[in-house]
Amino acid sequence: MDATEFRRRGKEMVDLIADYLENIEQRPVYPNVEPGYLRSLIPQEAPEEPDTYEDVVKDIERVIMPGAASPACTELETVMMDWLGKMLKLPEEFIAGTHGQGGGVIQGTASEATLVALLAARSRTVRIILANDPQRPETDITSKLVAYASDQAHCSVERAGMIGGVRMKKIPTKQSNKYAVHGETFLKMIQEDKAAGLIPFYVRTEHTTFFERTKHTHPILRTEHTPSILCNAEQIWMHIDAAYAGSSFICPEFRPLLNGIEFADSFNFNPHKWLLVNFDCSTMWVRDRSDLIGAFKMDPLYLKHDHQESGLITDYRHWQIPLGRRFRSLKMWFVFRMYGLKGLQDYIRKHVELAKEFETLVRADPRFEISADVILALVCFRLKGSNEMNEVLLKRINNGKKIHLVPCQLSGQFVLRFAICARTTESRHVREAWRIISQLAEEVMQELPH
Amino acid sequence: MDATEFRRRGKEMVDLIADYLENIEQRPVYPNVEPGYLRSLIPQEAPEEPDTYEDVVKDIERVIMPGAASPACTELETVMMDWLGKMLKLPEEFIAGTHGQGGGVIQGTASEATLVALLAARSRTVRIILANDPQRPETDITSKLVAYASDQAHCSVERAGMIGGVRMKKIPTKQSNKYAVHGETFLKMIQEDKAAGLIPFYVRTEHTTFFERTKHTHPILRTEHTPSILCNAEQIWMHIDAAYAGSSFICPEFRPLLNGIEFADSFNFNPHKWLLVNFDCSTMWVRDRSDLIGAFKMDPLYLKHDHQESGLITDYRHWQIPLGRRFRSLKMWFVFRMYGLKGLQDYIRKHVELAKEFETLVRADPRFEISADVILALVCFRLKGSNEMNEVLLKRINNGKKIHLVPCQLSGQFVLRFAICARTTESRHVREAWRIISQLAEEVMQELPH
Repeated sequence: MDATEFRRRGKEMVDLIADYLENIEQRPVYPNVEPGYLRSLIPQEAPEEPDTYEDVVKDIERVIMPGAASPACTELETVMMDWLGKMLKLPEEFIAGTHGQGGGVIQGTASEATLVALLAARSRTVRIILANDPQRPETDITSKLVAYASDQAHCSVERAGMIGGVRMKKIPTKQSNKYAVHGETFLKMIQEDKAAGLIPFYVRTEHTTFFERTKHTHPILRTEHTPSILCNAEQIWMHIDAAYAGSSFICPEFRPLLNGIEFADSFNFNPHKWLLVNFDCSTMWVRDRSDLIGAFKMDPLYLKHDHQESGLITDYRHWQIPLGRRFRSLKMWFVFRMYGLKGLQDYIRKHVELAKEFETLVRADPRFEISADVILALVCFRLKGSNEMNEVLLKRINNGKKIHLVPCQLSGQFVLRFAICARTTESRHVREAWRIISQLAEEVMQELPH
Repeated sequence: MDATEFRRRGKEMVDLIADYLENIEQRPVYPNVEPGYLRSLIPQEAPEEPDTYEDVVKDIERVIMPGAASPACTELETVMMDWLGKMLKLPEEFIAGTHGQGGGVIQGTASEATLVALLAARSRTVRIILANDPQRPETDITSKLVAYASDQAHCSVERAGMIGGVRMKKIPTKQSNKYAVHGETFLKMIQEDKAAGLIPFYVRTEHTTFFERTKHTHPILRTEHTPSILCNAEQIWMHIDAAYAGSSFICPEFRPLLNGIEFADSFNFNPHKWLLVNFDCSTMWVRDRSDLIGAFKMDPLYLKHDHQESGLITDYRHWQIPLGRRFRSLKMWFVFRMYGLKGLQDYIRKHVELAKEFETLVRADPRFEISADVILALVCFRLKGSNEMNEVLLKRINNGKKIHLVPCQLSGQFVLRFAICARTTESRHVREAWRIISQLAEEVMQELPH
């Protein structure tokens, strides 16, 4: 949708809202539908080709209005999470509309998903241990729990550990192993911790994480002794966070990066990062929804309703930290239909191509080096030479206010990161960015001793 | 703003967004402002009388655009929280633009504020104890922590306790004491728990809570031996949650309900409930921001910035559970300016009057009784008689889908709650609602034995 069409459609939408408000007294205050009404009104999967805007808007009255805010808000979310899960080819257990026990939920941010998974894991582990040893005080169990993440993991993991009040350990990685967690290293940690009386219960891992803006490990699952299999054997909850990379898994050529998902208990990524859905929209799936509900469930009288034990509906308030919820699945519905799966795949592929174009420019310049394989739309690169020189270069680039880069650290090296992430980025922007970087690099190299 | 003006202004806004997107390449990618730039560009307080829409929209380019998303998003939030805090006449320590150490933050829901306060309290208590006894294991401390709430409190308190992994105790209340926590009862619990080796560290209380849709206690602070003073003496964190009632405190006649705030560590209410700001917007103030930051702070390289030690800016990511944030203060800014303080006060007072009108109708009908004093815009009432009869009545009312009520329980009695909460509610709606209730009551009483 270009700006001209946006003007037209935006104004139609303003009228639609005004009409709704002017005639609201004609509508029932409470919906006249049965639980589960929505699923049969829309397709089982996202369209391959784009729908027209007219068709999408017509469906507001047909699909949403009969279910008003509730249950439409909940039911559209369940079905959109199924649509997206199917686009990613998640194992069937994670899809709600199957015989499995899983399903999806929209969280605000990946940090919340990390925390929710950790809390669910904590409660599951306590329950398992108490089942065998009912006399053991719960505080004795929780004080011995230990969660794990790669030493390259995002800070939100540590934060989740702090909030949940559990010990958090970092699994060391090495550059020679492409910052992957090595299965034997992890196994050894688990064995030592158990010998010391601790209770390993949770690991958060990133797939394709060295593409991530903030994380740089190789997929934990692709080491020889896969920790994922360890996790299942040890009843350690495995949460996979692919906050950035996840969007690319809708393309068959990138889907292998998610291999191993079949061992995970929960999975999360952020469509608000790279799938054209506005912030916030962090999508999380769990293999067994009873694990989540066990961690949070509270049922006071004023939140009771007739259908809660029917199994037909999802009480998302048991799936998250806040109680209140917004109608975030509407934006997924609009985006998936306006682009179609093919349009979204094209979008991902175009960004990856633009990153490759940038990589080619960097590699052609002997002053620079590429710091990690370029697989998605993020290029980690640096000037050959000191960290100081790269820090000065970054400062010059950002002070120019024409482009903006965020750094990271890889094995003690200060690294610049070039990310393609705007909807309107074209080849000319990439070339212009490289022109700026290249020119500033020349200035910096002249000023600083090598 | 009526629907006609909404159509006009909405369409102007669509054009403004389209213009922005079409010309985005002319703007710097990074703002050209110094930290703290925004405060001096706008008044220190919300206007008494409404501003014009034109003036508000003009300020987008003048005030927001120079600071882009960041730091404008953060700085407008700090100043809007000051505006609102001043409207409520909060003690100066809670206002950021003073010499105090406090300030405000927008959370998504009151449940999140309850949790954030509990986590901050937990971390403060652990720090204080470790300062005196550095050898004591942290898990030993946390396993002995105990948090308190009234037995009438919202379920989100228990949930916060579960998430934070701490013991939660309910303080018993009595109908004869109007469901207030009695200071001596609370003092006795604290003494007994301390004698048993436990560490009291947190209490969450509601003000004016029997007006709340979901909470029914009298203000904890107005008992004879005020627990708030206990809290200060015992270093127990006191969090006040006035999710619904808080909006009314902008009116001088309701402000006394907040008396005692001077003893609190944190305070929270939901402008999205009753102050015309759309969901979500749950406003929270703390007396000492370092308490929050201590609970959450993480500073990895990719989130570092030049100004973080300057004291000039607020890193809200340390004030909440998620890392990412939306620009929610914009809607506060628009609402406060379009209504002015007087317009907002008028709005609150009109709803309270409508509730009084409903109360008068109920009291005039000998079949009914009022179950709690009507002070704000919530009326708790019931048919004199069995719970069963009231449950049947509620079911009939809600099945009619003309009005919708949510029940609560008061001292074992099933109580109906009539809440005025829509922007467009008028006297005719109240009268029509009473007509429906009254007629259904007659049907129910004829069918059921008394």
